[in-house]
Amino acid sequence: MSRLELVKTGSGESGVGSGSPDPLPTPDSPLPGSHKLWGGRFAGGTAPALERLNRSLDVDFRLWPFDVELSKAWAVGLWSAGVLTREDSARLEQGLDAVGRRLAAGTVEPLPSDEDVHTLIDRLLHEEVGDLAARLHTGRSRNDQVATATRLWSADACRRLDGALRELQQALVTQAESLGSAPMPAYTHLQRAQPVLAAHWMLAHFWPLERDRARLVAAGRAASASLPLGAGAVAGSAYPVSRVLLKESLGFAAPSANSIDAVGDRDFVAELLFALALVGTHLSRLAEDLILFGSSEFGFVRFGDAYSTGSSMMPQKRNPDALELARATGGRVLGDLTALLATMKGLPSGYNKDMQEDKRALFDAVDATLLVLPAAAGAVAELTFDTARMRAALTSGMMATDLADYLVRKGATFREAHAAAGSLVRQAEERGCELDALPAEAFAAAHPLFGDDARAMLSPDASIALREIDGGTGPAAVRAQLAHAKEVLHPPKLTPGNGVAAIVG
Amino acid sequence: MSRLELVKTGSGESGVGSGSPDPLPTPDSPLPGSHKLWGGRFAGGTAPALERLNRSLDVDFRLWPFDVELSKAWAVGLWSAGVLTREDSARLEQGLDAVGRRLAAGTVEPLPSDEDVHTLIDRLLHEEVGDLAARLHTGRSRNDQVATATRLWSADACRRLDGALRELQQALVTQAESLGSAPMPAYTHLQRAQPVLAAHWMLAHFWPLERDRARLVAAGRAASASLPLGAGAVAGSAYPVSRVLLKESLGFAAPSANSIDAVGDRDFVAELLFALALVGTHLSRLAEDLILFGSSEFGFVRFGDAYSTGSSMMPQKRNPDALELARATGGRVLGDLTALLATMKGLPSGYNKDMQEDKRALFDAVDATLLVLPAAAGAVAELTFDTARMRAALTSGMMATDLADYLVRKGATFREAHAAAGSLVRQAEERGCELDALPAEAFAAAHPLFGDDARAMLSPDASIALREIDGGTGPAAVRAQLAHAKEVLHPPKLTPGNGVAAIVG
Amino acid sequence: MSRLELVKTGSGESGVGSGSPDPLPTPDSPLPGSHKLWGGRFAGGTAPALERLNRSLDVDFRLWPFDVELSKAWAVGLWSAGVLTREDSARLEQGLDAVGRRLAAGTVEPLPSDEDVHTLIDRLLHEEVGDLAARLHTGRSRNDQVATATRLWSADACRRLDGALRELQQALVTQAESLGSAPMPAYTHLQRAQPVLAAHWMLAHFWPLERDRARLVAAGRAASASLPLGAGAVAGSAYPVSRVLLKESLGFAAPSANSIDAVGDRDFVAELLFALALVGTHLSRLAEDLILFGSSEFGFVRFGDAYSTGSSMMPQKRNPDALELARATGGRVLGDLTALLATMKGLPSGYNKDMQEDKRALFDAVDATLLVLPAAAGAVAELTFDTARMRAALTSGMMATDLADYLVRKGATFREAHAAAGSLVRQAEERGCELDALPAEAFAAAHPLFGDDARAMLSPDASIALREIDGGTGPAAVRAQLAHAKEVLHPPKLTPGNGVAAIVG
Amino acid sequence: MSRLELVKTGSGESGVGSGSPDPLPTPDSPLPGSHKLWGGRFAGGTAPALERLNRSLDVDFRLWPFDVELSKAWAVGLWSAGVLTREDSARLEQGLDAVGRRLAAGTVEPLPSDEDVHTLIDRLLHEEVGDLAARLHTGRSRNDQVATATRLWSADACRRLDGALRELQQALVTQAESLGSAPMPAYTHLQRAQPVLAAHWMLAHFWPLERDRARLVAAGRAASASLPLGAGAVAGSAYPVSRVLLKESLGFAAPSANSIDAVGDRDFVAELLFALALVGTHLSRLAEDLILFGSSEFGFVRFGDAYSTGSSMMPQKRNPDALELARATGGRVLGDLTALLATMKGLPSGYNKDMQEDKRALFDAVDATLLVLPAAAGAVAELTFDTARMRAALTSGMMATDLADYLVRKGATFREAHAAAGSLVRQAEERGCELDALPAEAFAAAHPLFGDDARAMLSPDASIALREIDGGTGPAAVRAQLAHAKEVLHPPKLTPGNGVAAIVG
Repeated sequence: MSRLELVKTGSGESGVGSGSPDPLPTPDSPLPGSHKLWGGRFAGGTAPALERLNRSLDVDFRLWPFDVELSKAWAVGLWSAGVLTREDSARLEQGLDAVGRRLAAGTVEPLPSDEDVHTLIDRLLHEEVGDLAARLHTGRSRNDQVATATRLWSADACRRLDGALRELQQALVTQAESLGSAPMPAYTHLQRAQPVLAAHWMLAHFWPLERDRARLVAAGRAASASLPLGAGAVAGSAYPVSRVLLKESLGFAAPSANSIDAVGDRDFVAELLFALALVGTHLSRLAEDLILFGSSEFGFVRFGDAYSTGSSMMPQKRNPDALELARATGGRVLGDLTALLATMKGLPSGYNKDMQEDKRALFDAVDATLLVLPAAAGAVAELTFDTARMRAALTSGMMATDLADYLVRKGATFREAHAAAGSLVRQAEERGCELDALPAEAFAAAHPLFGDDARAMLSPDASIALREIDGGTGPAAVRAQLAHAKEVLHPPKLTPGNGVAAIVG
Repeated sequence: MSRLELVKTGSGESGVGSGSPDPLPTPDSPLPGSHKLWGGRFAGGTAPALERLNRSLDVDFRLWPFDVELSKAWAVGLWSAGVLTREDSARLEQGLDAVGRRLAAGTVEPLPSDEDVHTLIDRLLHEEVGDLAARLHTGRSRNDQVATATRLWSADACRRLDGALRELQQALVTQAESLGSAPMPAYTHLQRAQPVLAAHWMLAHFWPLERDRARLVAAGRAASASLPLGAGAVAGSAYPVSRVLLKESLGFAAPSANSIDAVGDRDFVAELLFALALVGTHLSRLAEDLILFGSSEFGFVRFGDAYSTGSSMMPQKRNPDALELARATGGRVLGDLTALLATMKGLPSGYNKDMQEDKRALFDAVDATLLVLPAAAGAVAELTFDTARMRAALTSGMMATDLADYLVRKGATFREAHAAAGSLVRQAEERGCELDALPAEAFAAAHPLFGDDARAMLSPDASIALREIDGGTGPAAVRAQLAHAKEVLHPPKLTPGNGVAAIVG
Repeated sequence: MSRLELVKTGSGESGVGSGSPDPLPTPDSPLPGSHKLWGGRFAGGTAPALERLNRSLDVDFRLWPFDVELSKAWAVGLWSAGVLTREDSARLEQGLDAVGRRLAAGTVEPLPSDEDVHTLIDRLLHEEVGDLAARLHTGRSRNDQVATATRLWSADACRRLDGALRELQQALVTQAESLGSAPMPAYTHLQRAQPVLAAHWMLAHFWPLERDRARLVAAGRAASASLPLGAGAVAGSAYPVSRVLLKESLGFAAPSANSIDAVGDRDFVAELLFALALVGTHLSRLAEDLILFGSSEFGFVRFGDAYSTGSSMMPQKRNPDALELARATGGRVLGDLTALLATMKGLPSGYNKDMQEDKRALFDAVDATLLVLPAAAGAVAELTFDTARMRAALTSGMMATDLADYLVRKGATFREAHAAAGSLVRQAEERGCELDALPAEAFAAAHPLFGDDARAMLSPDASIALREIDGGTGPAAVRAQLAHAKEVLHPPKLTPGNGVAAIVG
Repeated sequence: MSRLELVKTGSGESGVGSGSPDPLPTPDSPLPGSHKLWGGRFAGGTAPALERLNRSLDVDFRLWPFDVELSKAWAVGLWSAGVLTREDSARLEQGLDAVGRRLAAGTVEPLPSDEDVHTLIDRLLHEEVGDLAARLHTGRSRNDQVATATRLWSADACRRLDGALRELQQALVTQAESLGSAPMPAYTHLQRAQPVLAAHWMLAHFWPLERDRARLVAAGRAASASLPLGAGAVAGSAYPVSRVLLKESLGFAAPSANSIDAVGDRDFVAELLFALALVGTHLSRLAEDLILFGSSEFGFVRFGDAYSTGSSMMPQKRNPDALELARATGGRVLGDLTALLATMKGLPSGYNKDMQEDKRALFDAVDATLLVLPAAAGAVAELTFDTARMRAALTSGMMATDLADYLVRKGATFREAHAAAGSLVRQAEERGCELDALPAEAFAAAHPLFGDDARAMLSPDASIALREIDGGTGPAAVRAQLAHAKEVLHPPKLTPGNGVAAIVG
């Protein structure tokens, strides 16, 4: 929306004194020309407080393309059931196309009585085809309708998310490739652990995203697994609409097996939210690494100007806002997942109005992720690495494991070897020197099997070269890993649905 | 916002085919005339993906009255520190008042470069007072500024929430009063347990809300406990502004004790969210009771037309949407609380950009609660009770406890008595009759102490009359409870801060 | 454990006065004979407060069968890498088998120095094979070891959970079958909506569990997808152990692709917890239905004596404790999922000690689910249905949709028809009669198309018979659904991995 | 418990092959000598699956001191109501004391039939005083009993937690004091922001804990606010027990106002869990700071040997396990809070069995916090600071704000000044030098008001000295802050309930 409108609305309802900007407009009067899909049995009007609470158009408006699509399928279905003539069915389809064009053009003015997107489209369809529009609601209910539209939206969102994830993966692969054979410390417990290739570290963030993509494919498949349309309000439609025809035309794997479950099931929303909660978790860990490595103390990376912000007070600051907001996404989406599951918990079977809140959580999580992924991809793409500082951080104590391994190869048990290497580390600390600065006697005293060649173990490159095990940090292993990563990102030929769905990592 | 704008925006960016309505506009070009409060050190522009992610104006716009207020206080503070002349300080105050008037009038058009409410107000102030505006940012930072504005907003929200809660409490009290001495079953495990006055049940929902109000008072106090303004970015302002003067003029109890903590603390947001999570929990339990009691099977209450909705398919439906959405609020606000705590967890001390997300959770929870409370109050106020059905549900088995108590009073132990009453219940079940339809011999056989007067124990009114213990369901006890409830709702005289703050229940 | 031990421990550490039973023993003295796998570099001992905090044996003890299994595979792997002779490798395997037998026999006394299950097994292995045991830790780390053991445990748990879910599904199918053609109301918004077959409602709880089973298969597959063993602490093992051999012998699909990710990834735990959170959600909805239907007011089901509990005060009570605890499982497991995701959020890549907490959440969720599923299955199996009350609840207003459909078939639009049926519902309410008791004139006045046959629409059986759409409640459709349910539960022939993995519903 | 028992149990039930250690024993046979407090109405026995699920003794056993205490008060109450003679009441009190002594001595062997702590104590009391024990259950229910015992336990836990928090606060104060006037960088966005005294940073972690203590006082007060005992199962006790006497003897502020609310309210558990969730959040932020500052790259602190652990693979490691587990506590306790709130959401009023799960969450959160606080306090106490490295990290760019402030004092606006300082920062970066190494001409070119004294602004000590504002990092301000911290930790005289309860920060 234009910010003007935002400001007008926000401020129009509160003075400086009141300090109570109310985010929602208040319809105080009865709604003229309502196209509500119910009401015959009610004597009075609806209370404004309930109208405000119940109204979901600002949330569910974005479902419109899918509501139009399923409505067209339903028009055909009613023809298949003998409820509509071929001509009427076609007129409804054309009318719905016209409605879709108007909505796409942005020329529609919603009325206060348009309580949700279904009601809005019903009103517009009346404007297009007159009373014939009233026949479209035959044998369906908003319960099966909204479940179907939300499934279609979710499946589409999974596709969009896949693309955004791939962009971030591509940025990681490109950086990994450009890092070549530069070494850096790997950390556990945030303590320097062992030397690794920087490309190996960068790719450590690639595989979680690959698992995420597989989960999103599965979530999209779950959304498209089972078509609610035809379930009616709860008992199944009374018209012999071909659900096979419906599921085919809307791209579902099967019609729902049970109409009560069909209108009351939101597992597919939970699956998508969970997949995004893990995306958020992975982004938070990538962001944490980069924020750390971009600090003055680490100094391994420098954030690009285009992805840094300054401070209103401190002229020297170069803040990694994009990454911090990426880190926060983990918390935000976890909140959305918690909201959905807590809302569903303990509901009786079938549809309950509580379930209207599913979309708020779903849309927030998808929006947040689609907003943060391009910024994260951009931030990664514009990182500059200081490979000299990365190498300088490889102090010889980090090769203590290699020293122990040396003794093992000479015949010591690992426990003895670990203890001997540990005692050398302690001596170095006490003397305030690096491990490789200890005198030969110290080595000899620590273990009789230490020979003159022991000190050669303290080279990071030697340490890395020893780790050519599959998935290890040896140069050949990392080259193979990089090739593997590129292959999953750009599969040689796209045989649909395979490759992507396998959980990798 | 007008729905027109919403629709225009939503649909303008997606075709029917794409199905990808993007909720946020995309500034593709460099921002003209930016009033960003930083930038001197950066060579290039900011990436559009980061601009989109970073921009918080649509969320934090509502802070404007408080940002104007604290800016006025800061202008005075700068005078007190000798940074501004009295005249300049006064001109800034007047300029800020003018900005406030423009914002209140809704005539302001935000620019793409207004990244947040602070930047927007800075730009407007330049329009009012020229370069003098640039002096206002002396010695302060957005870090202390936004923390202060959010605290002021939160304290105000607590006051608004208190009013909305009181309305619901009032509706409960009014209904309790009108229920008089009508009895109904109390349930545990959703099994009929013992007879109570319906007023007693209604008031069982009053006291949790009274605890909520006390928690909101505490949350408001926490928000106002400690003034961040003057903490600067993190180390404290370098100008000797009187923080005592600031805290007095802005209504805080004290200046913050530590500048690092001042800009990094969001405990007050968590407290408010937690208080609202319990409000949501209480609403969900009230709603659950009412939804159950309004089912055809219970039939104790009938929902008012103005607070019921119909079905698009089933003409006979009378759905308690307001109550179902009230039940869902418990899940939604729990999600907001989880989001905040998960976001704060593990952040380094001081300000981190992740904390920008605090407001999204805070505003969502407050908005949701302020939207649902009036609807819940209205729904309660318009309930009609079917006291005949409530009384009819008091089957004599519910007085089995009274039968056991009778034996206790005659000298049996409670365990014996419980067993004897239990065996009568079983016999009645086996014969398919009510407890009071068992023959006298059955009573005599169950326990020798049963006399002719035992059957009188099976009257619900007698059972209720026996429970005059404080807080019990005896008629006098309930009258006293009702008087107590009215008193806490309308305290005789408002001695500030007492009464309300005590946790009751 | 025997409750004696529990009580001894609990009470031994607290007096009545102190009221502070501390759940954990306190080792106050240095640990004798420690088999800690580290320590050479440390001058002093470990603080008791850290020992207590760090010690995980009481949590991770249950991993022992898997730690023994992977250690045997590692012994072979070290032989394949030329680190061990064939004889030493075999002696280690035999020693590990002996350790496994001792642990299985329950004759092992843990020492205070056994900080975790890995340390315990290391000590026992020393007791079996002497210093050779010290060679087993060559080239591996607790980081890759615990990740592997936890994956093996998780995959096994998925199999056990599948069995427990199938039992509950079987109970639902059996009840559905025995319900035959008995009708009952279906509810939406807990308002009577439309008549359905009771078997249809029962099966509405079958399909969510079928989706759960599919998710557990996927979670088990995710646990077995990627073998961490060989990743070492973080950089990959320095010994050329064949990871293909390892993954084959331990039943994994592939070795992990990146050693940093291998030790730092807990996605598989999150997936299992999420699958269980949905199991818990589904159990909560099943339980809610049954608790409602078992209330005196609904009276549709009676809980079996073996699955009901009484009240210590009210002799007549028959409480559905099993179902209430099943409902609570939804909240408990959501808590475990939240704990895991919030713990992982924002951690740097690689292993961090925070991740030790993964097992607490994982084990709690699996234990809770395995405890509640048999009780839920038993409670369902012992339900008795009161089909007469279920039928009696089918008031004619529930067929209002059929009345509207009648008009549609006569040529009215659904909107007109809905309004006409709604007005009849309102008249019936005003007259205090059922819909089918309205006079013919009322029908005629409501819509001219109403004929003499309209009243026949008000039969529940007719309404049900009309809904033979796939997944609908028509008798033939429900028979087909039941056959479908049995087939997925007992697939005709087990072609591995198909059928089960498809998401159904 | 002794680890032997643990191991015996765990392993006794699973073979190596099965891989399914079942954590709970299975009573397969009917329970002999049951002291169940109900059962008269049931024909058959309870199903083993329900027994297992329902049994809560292993969780609620720790309530025993409080159950004994409230039972003694109830014995007196029954005398006050004329139900018991003075002698019988006294015999019950003595019997309960004897039961308490047995439980404290740890000589009690629980039977399979002891389903919860109340049933266990009832059985023991029968052993002490014979049939008189059966009179104690007169007029009370496990519903009011367990709510009362849990409140007493919670209030006691708050006291214990306060002590543990104070220890950590004391460690922070001691370290702050010993840091004297050593300077270090303060960070925002993890970028070096401004110089502060290290003591100031340390105290930034003191105030959040002070707020925590205030919240725990409030949570303890909430637990003691309202006595459930006397509420019976739901309707109030039928015996005129003096609830004023009860609340006085048990230390509550008031009897509960409504018996239905009294047995169904768990707000006090939620409040305690929330207070602990914030404790966990604060610990996580303290831990994050220390883990960062203890990395080789920061090198500001060194962890004490007694609070570090090693690696089973890497001899050089010194891992801050205590701090990492402290960081994880934030996630774990958030999980407990989520579990409780999600469990309570949507329950009908009054007692439901779901609420039994409150104790699992409560005890886990309190145990976790009491385990981690001493370890955190110890870890803080044994930190060694490298003040030379802290000072060395104060690069002159951090004083850019002071440079801007200098221009402001000379008459520039802050915006101009910020831009000028920013441009100098950029030049220094481009030249690869520090800000104070730029030539004088660069300063002059950046802004005409820069004089010779500008460079003096680039001293960290000067920067710190300028921030003597309340709560700022100036040396005198920090001395005052330290004095304030000591005062709140050791208030001069203990006037009950003041000082502590004020929210500080």
